[in-house]
Amino acid sequence: MRAMTMPGTSDRFTSDGTDRDAVTRAVEEAMDDDLDLPELTTLVRSLPAGWVVEVLDRLSSKRRAVLYRLLGKDQALEVFEMLDPTLQGDLVGALQDDDVAALFADLDPDDRVELLDELPAKVARRLLQGLPPQERDLTAGILGYPQRSIGRRMSPEYVAVRPEMTSAEALRRVSAHLDDAETVYTMPVVDDQRVLVGIVSLRDLMRAPVGTPVGEVMQRPDEVRATDDAEEAARRCADLKLLALPVVDNEHRLVGILTVDDALAILESADSEDQARIGGAEPLRRPYLAAPVSTLVRSRVVWLLVLAVGATLTVQVLEVFEATLEQVVTLALFVPLLIGTGGNTGNQAATTVTRALALGDVVPRDLGKVLFREFRVGLSLGVLLGVLAFAVTGLIYGRDIGLVIGLTFVSLCAMAATVGGVMPLLARVVRADPAVFSNPFISTFVDAAGLLIYFGIAKAVLGI
Amino acid sequence: MRAMTMPGTSDRFTSDGTDRDAVTRAVEEAMDDDLDLPELTTLVRSLPAGWVVEVLDRLSSKRRAVLYRLLGKDQALEVFEMLDPTLQGDLVGALQDDDVAALFADLDPDDRVELLDELPAKVARRLLQGLPPQERDLTAGILGYPQRSIGRRMSPEYVAVRPEMTSAEALRRVSAHLDDAETVYTMPVVDDQRVLVGIVSLRDLMRAPVGTPVGEVMQRPDEVRATDDAEEAARRCADLKLLALPVVDNEHRLVGILTVDDALAILESADSEDQARIGGAEPLRRPYLAAPVSTLVRSRVVWLLVLAVGATLTVQVLEVFEATLEQVVTLALFVPLLIGTGGNTGNQAATTVTRALALGDVVPRDLGKVLFREFRVGLSLGVLLGVLAFAVTGLIYGRDIGLVIGLTFVSLCAMAATVGGVMPLLARVVRADPAVFSNPFISTFVDAAGLLIYFGIAKAVLGI
Repeated sequence: MRAMTMPGTSDRFTSDGTDRDAVTRAVEEAMDDDLDLPELTTLVRSLPAGWVVEVLDRLSSKRRAVLYRLLGKDQALEVFEMLDPTLQGDLVGALQDDDVAALFADLDPDDRVELLDELPAKVARRLLQGLPPQERDLTAGILGYPQRSIGRRMSPEYVAVRPEMTSAEALRRVSAHLDDAETVYTMPVVDDQRVLVGIVSLRDLMRAPVGTPVGEVMQRPDEVRATDDAEEAARRCADLKLLALPVVDNEHRLVGILTVDDALAILESADSEDQARIGGAEPLRRPYLAAPVSTLVRSRVVWLLVLAVGATLTVQVLEVFEATLEQVVTLALFVPLLIGTGGNTGNQAATTVTRALALGDVVPRDLGKVLFREFRVGLSLGVLLGVLAFAVTGLIYGRDIGLVIGLTFVSLCAMAATVGGVMPLLARVVRADPAVFSNPFISTFVDAAGLLIYFGIAKAVLGI
Repeated sequence: MRAMTMPGTSDRFTSDGTDRDAVTRAVEEAMDDDLDLPELTTLVRSLPAGWVVEVLDRLSSKRRAVLYRLLGKDQALEVFEMLDPTLQGDLVGALQDDDVAALFADLDPDDRVELLDELPAKVARRLLQGLPPQERDLTAGILGYPQRSIGRRMSPEYVAVRPEMTSAEALRRVSAHLDDAETVYTMPVVDDQRVLVGIVSLRDLMRAPVGTPVGEVMQRPDEVRATDDAEEAARRCADLKLLALPVVDNEHRLVGILTVDDALAILESADSEDQARIGGAEPLRRPYLAAPVSTLVRSRVVWLLVLAVGATLTVQVLEVFEATLEQVVTLALFVPLLIGTGGNTGNQAATTVTRALALGDVVPRDLGKVLFREFRVGLSLGVLLGVLAFAVTGLIYGRDIGLVIGLTFVSLCAMAATVGGVMPLLARVVRADPAVFSNPFISTFVDAAGLLIYFGIAKAVLGI
């Protein structure tokens, strides 16, 4: 889609980090000052699309629309294609209907579906109806697959070849589709029922002697089902280091292709989601500076509230032990330290197992293995910290308090690591997002259970 | 490198998730039982390399070596190339010297360097000396770049073309390097000083009329410096949706190429690192089930200890207020709730900003913007939670305690979000890993400062 040709090297636009920074900064400053539109227009039109996207990602939605309207026609399309779907959705509201219809028709079918998901139903319907019939069919095909499935993110614009074709015939087929296919570097091979029987790279086609049948140079295909989870399919494409992965239906008939750049985009947003949830927030779905403060608040307030409500359990547990606290107020001093350590141990385990699940290194049937491993890890950590804590607190607060703290560390860490390690797997079993489910449950459970352990040990050791 | 051809479709090996699961499970069970080696050999030799890697990722290092030795020769190389460098390193210790030398010579130069980093210096030196001279030079070139730079991860095996070549000449050049180049789908265009002047895709070369000079169909190049940070370069490659990104030296001379599959691998391990550190642990660098329990303990104990030592600050703060606690023991009940909420608010902000930094959405010069945003976000969250907390605790524990808790929420959240948002940027400024630096600092500082705020407000409101 990049139609721009280069008039020779220009020193101004070497991709040297400093220069790029300086230029994007200049645009931002020009937007801050009273706008000199003609000058700003000249400046932004001279920039590569990637740089413009970087600037747009940092602006508020009002300013983003202003700057976007200054772009040249081809540049505008190229920039639009590189923007996050959420930002595309924002822009659609701010542009003329005609411009939107033209942009929409120029998008690839898979990108179009992503944008549709961001738009109000009414706008989406109007845009779909405005498409040429063939494009509308391609788009409708993708829209038929469930949310979060790879069918939604694949491209239906592939070049397929047949096993009985010669390499020369296959190359001619490829040459005929240089303009419209999503990729021409990896070709699915199908039989006359459209069943996937192999995969062949352009490199292998070019390398093969002219008369060789495709069947002799093709590879055994890796494939995913259109209804498979998009993240798992993308991870598969990445793990196998493929430039493109064929997508098939239940009868193994080819329906589309997942290219590595789309796989990358899927993985990047999945990783952003996981990180946000490990940190106890909802994913932002747009660049940080482009998100209004109210969006940031909304992405965090629910989790914060859930966690705070869960934490009231600790208030209740402490109330039960209020008499004990009044007797030995020293016990209160260690509450944040112990609670914190329990939470940290649980989070370490949960994060490790959540990541292992995402990477496919661990599957739900490994529950027993994970439980046993995490118990051993937690116990080891508890013993290491407990001995140290016993020595230090014993010296300062006496042997009894030292013993209480030391023993609490041992049991707390073993409990927290086991719970933290097992939660993400249980979440997966009940089909919840491991990162969502684990965090509040672990915080609430480990904190409350930790206090019970602490005061239980304290009462036993101190005899109160 | 995949030489395997396919003898036709085999129903046994459709990539249907269930079948794949069943087969890998069968291999695992065969390893668990008394081994019937010939049968196991037949089974694993019939599997695609990707499936074998999945099984190997789940075995202990001893069993991994046993299974690996059963593989066929070509299969073994293919599998070895797909393994994590750490697991490759483990295997090297368990295999015959001759086998290792052969594997090592067959690796791509960039993969070779990754493996070298995993090996003891003595073994690394011996392997390097065993290489053919040309391969040794290529490898030594990559080894000359700093750790974590993209120069270490790029491939020096590119096909470059000249702007004055015709498209037909360029295609002939490409055809001559089908066997040895890392990619033939994206070609850097260089002048006679080897200075990068453009980039051209195989698709555009094939599309151009026969006599067209390359200079007319090439694009303005995006490029990275060999000394640039590997993660940033990989993110750039992904953001621009490029199949390959040229790598240049300080004089803009071409030295290598970064392909998208290598970029993906870099990003995946960077994201794993970030997630581990957000969860308060060191990255594992090997699949979860393949890591011995002692490795898991080691990856967590240092952070747990650092965080626990930091948390002793809370013990000291509480000691200062021990007299206040003895007067109003009710205050102790809310300590875990308040500490927890402060920590959660700080973590939310830190995680969001850390991710924004990794994605390039925020740069260090945005410090002021981030500070102001996070203060507003924190204040809003604090007011929302504070009002609620005032209402609930006021009802149960009386107006005064309600006021203390409500006001503490407001100031605590504002403080925690600001600190949490700013820390990752400060970490980047002092060139520390934002994820590493933020976590312990925020926990320690926010917990201790939160307690000071809490008791300060309590003393003022309750007049003690």
